[in-house]
Amino acid sequence: MSFIDLNSDLGESFGQWHMGDDATMLGIVTSANVACGFHAGDPAGILRTLKAAASHGVTVGAHVGYPDLVGFGRRNMDIASDELRADVIYQIGALKGLARAAGTQVRYVKPHGALYNTIAHDRRQADAVLAAIDDVDASLVLMTLAGSPLNEWACKAGLRVAAEAFADRAYNRDGSLVSRREAGAVLHDADQVAERMQRLAREGVIECIDGHDIALQADSICVHGDSPGAVALAAAVRSRLARSGIKLKAFAETGP
Amino acid sequence: MSFIDLNSDLGESFGQWHMGDDATMLGIVTSANVACGFHAGDPAGILRTLKAAASHGVTVGAHVGYPDLVGFGRRNMDIASDELRADVIYQIGALKGLARAAGTQVRYVKPHGALYNTIAHDRRQADAVLAAIDDVDASLVLMTLAGSPLNEWACKAGLRVAAEAFADRAYNRDGSLVSRREAGAVLHDADQVAERMQRLAREGVIECIDGHDIALQADSICVHGDSPGAVALAAAVRSRLARSGIKLKAFAETGP
Amino acid sequence: MSFIDLNSDLGESFGQWHMGDDATMLGIVTSANVACGFHAGDPAGILRTLKAAASHGVTVGAHVGYPDLVGFGRRNMDIASDELRADVIYQIGALKGLARAAGTQVRYVKPHGALYNTIAHDRRQADAVLAAIDDVDASLVLMTLAGSPLNEWACKAGLRVAAEAFADRAYNRDGSLVSRREAGAVLHDADQVAERMQRLAREGVIECIDGHDIALQADSICVHGDSPGAVALAAAVRSRLARSGIKLKAFAETGP
Amino acid sequence: MSFIDLNSDLGESFGQWHMGDDATMLGIVTSANVACGFHAGDPAGILRTLKAAASHGVTVGAHVGYPDLVGFGRRNMDIASDELRADVIYQIGALKGLARAAGTQVRYVKPHGALYNTIAHDRRQADAVLAAIDDVDASLVLMTLAGSPLNEWACKAGLRVAAEAFADRAYNRDGSLVSRREAGAVLHDADQVAERMQRLAREGVIECIDGHDIALQADSICVHGDSPGAVALAAAVRSRLARSGIKLKAFAETGP
Repeated sequence: MSFIDLNSDLGESFGQWHMGDDATMLGIVTSANVACGFHAGDPAGILRTLKAAASHGVTVGAHVGYPDLVGFGRRNMDIASDELRADVIYQIGALKGLARAAGTQVRYVKPHGALYNTIAHDRRQADAVLAAIDDVDASLVLMTLAGSPLNEWACKAGLRVAAEAFADRAYNRDGSLVSRREAGAVLHDADQVAERMQRLAREGVIECIDGHDIALQADSICVHGDSPGAVALAAAVRSRLARSGIKLKAFAETGP
Repeated sequence: MSFIDLNSDLGESFGQWHMGDDATMLGIVTSANVACGFHAGDPAGILRTLKAAASHGVTVGAHVGYPDLVGFGRRNMDIASDELRADVIYQIGALKGLARAAGTQVRYVKPHGALYNTIAHDRRQADAVLAAIDDVDASLVLMTLAGSPLNEWACKAGLRVAAEAFADRAYNRDGSLVSRREAGAVLHDADQVAERMQRLAREGVIECIDGHDIALQADSICVHGDSPGAVALAAAVRSRLARSGIKLKAFAETGP
Repeated sequence: MSFIDLNSDLGESFGQWHMGDDATMLGIVTSANVACGFHAGDPAGILRTLKAAASHGVTVGAHVGYPDLVGFGRRNMDIASDELRADVIYQIGALKGLARAAGTQVRYVKPHGALYNTIAHDRRQADAVLAAIDDVDASLVLMTLAGSPLNEWACKAGLRVAAEAFADRAYNRDGSLVSRREAGAVLHDADQVAERMQRLAREGVIECIDGHDIALQADSICVHGDSPGAVALAAAVRSRLARSGIKLKAFAETGP
Repeated sequence: MSFIDLNSDLGESFGQWHMGDDATMLGIVTSANVACGFHAGDPAGILRTLKAAASHGVTVGAHVGYPDLVGFGRRNMDIASDELRADVIYQIGALKGLARAAGTQVRYVKPHGALYNTIAHDRRQADAVLAAIDDVDASLVLMTLAGSPLNEWACKAGLRVAAEAFADRAYNRDGSLVSRREAGAVLHDADQVAERMQRLAREGVIECIDGHDIALQADSICVHGDSPGAVALAAAVRSRLARSGIKLKAFAETGP
């Protein structure tokens, strides 16, 4: 593998509340998961992030979430399928409108937080999200957790998928993420993380928490920008990949 | 004049709260001003209204408002221009997404409530709305209050406008609406209203509150559907226009 | 048993959206479960309902719910305990403030919708609600589903409870409600419902869906007011109880 | 004058979004204006701030605002009097509930942002706020802008007031604040600010922007904590006042 994408969650400020260092991260990543107003993001702030993404040539995805601002979309909600489907269409549509105003386009969809975790295994909610994408723009790529059943469901629904790995997370033998409640679930050493991501990108292999190597096919690597340490780690991954001859490139087209 | 449009505010339910008789009104009007979630409307309910509009062949407009659900968008808000501009883009985009899912398209924009009243005379907020439409889709028609300065501002900005008259409102000599605080401001007699609208459509004339006739050029007539009486009045206007040979026709294209 | 309470959900309008016939229901019930703004109710509307309750001498309870206006608090949410606890305190406090302004007092707490169903069996969320009541005012009575484990948990926590039965619902042999998804779950015949409630109040017995009688101790009967049929059914229950010599009386004190 | 109060806006985080350094500021101020959820603050975060205020012995006030989270309560809203009155009661009540859970009490009310500025001169909205305080707890002190007409209106309504001066703002000859749009409106030099506040507290005099001294009676000094520079300035004011023998003391009682 000689190409890989770097993605990060952006546009997550809300009104007077700032979150993340979007300007810096847009110089590191190739794909921006931009909040759509349900878990984070207000229209004016989202538009600023989209304009910055456009000027950096970073590809834009719709980071759709549950309608739960105070919970930042991180709380499971038992939403009826028709409501979830319409909520996802609404968010994608809103971001498409803002992206057009910013001179760019939405190219993919990444579910956020509890919705991301739920549809990785819950068929009912997954189907609602897949139907929503098909309803509003079937050319959009769905970003999924590498190795989750959602990949297959999405492919069967006729959607393109891009599987992602998490730079700063430990993996179980079966390819799932080690729960944040367990020791060692989150990695903090920038060199170690960069080394792991280089190997993932080059060989399609990652060392899981018990020391064994497992195969993991990823089109994109997720990095975070919500703290100075996170930004430094993201930069370390980028520079290591670049030095080792792996080209950073969005998995979907960029811009209008 | 042998053509005129009938428009009404629809999609204004929210979650478990119902408002208006959308199904009936879609059999009366030719254009539907559909709420976009800021002053009213939730995604699943909006989608249902859009599907019904599509099946009735009714043209869809984005009824954009202030972000004030509890106030139903009827309270003046001193919103900064960049925030208002982004709010309007967001709402239009969201409705475009839902309209595509419903098999139809958004063809025009009608500001709602306090935003409608404000931009009829406030240049700063008007400019923000005009810029928003131009940003997201310059082919959208702006629906305006017939006779307001907004018509000229919109034309100068290169946007198409459709001027509307209100079926159930009395007019002042200068073409403005009689304030709801004054006696006689709202008309309730279906025959009288239908008669006035027939004359408006045929002759471009309306009798104002002091008994004089004034010229009023309208592309559309706004009727309401928020009470059984309102629905009956709307139906009376429609049947009178039809009987007198005035064709009811949306001012913008309908459907996808 | 010669006393029983009748309760209903009130104050559920929101802004321009009306729900229920509060004025009529306040002439029927002895306890009003008043929405607190999280699943329904805006401050001005809640205050109007509280003033009407005060003038009717109806006891007021805080109808606390999940922070989910668009879902009307009917969607399960996996809220962390400290967040749920604070949410419940906030809602009770807000209603206490409005009740004082209305010349009455909050006397009990009834969880709403999905929160009601969840804490009837989920110990973690139940404990958060119990702790919240203890934090803000330990003299408040908790209204619970008759027969649910929550009764015991609340008593062990030192809170007073009032168990309620549902006038228009069928019961299983074990005292649980027949799921709305099953045939016969909801009763519509006013005479039949009144007859069942008379027997419940007098004998502490209800005929369950398989025809057997089961014992059910209830301090209150829940009736609804969200449709003309529901209001008529509530009135039928009230008049039947009155005719059969059962005194309608709030389980908690009324007023300031 | 040998006593003065220091107040600051706290509890303004919202969900995952953090704002201000509440822990540090609670070691500096004697009164905490705590957000009530309308312009900022979620219940769990507000409760944490209230517990910290209780443990620091800092007096708590309700920082009530317009219902405008995305605008942080800084946008003028033309709210009807009955709605504003109920909104203020609701917020005070909610904070009272949380304060009780935190082992403290609400002792005063400070309107926030656009509401603060509006009621300093707008009689209609001022009256709604005054009526709300009287409705819910007439023992609460209203914090006002020193020199504004609101002081007199509040006194006539029978409420106690505490007038505040702003540490980091320049004053006009008539005692009003220099508009932020003018040069020199905001002071940044910690020594200068501390010097001015010492003189204000000791002599009841402040040098206005044209170099003249004016009399200004203040019961409290407002300091900010929304940036490291603001915290440093607040600390400088505190230590200067302490060194010059002026006792820092809340204008209202503290705690339960």
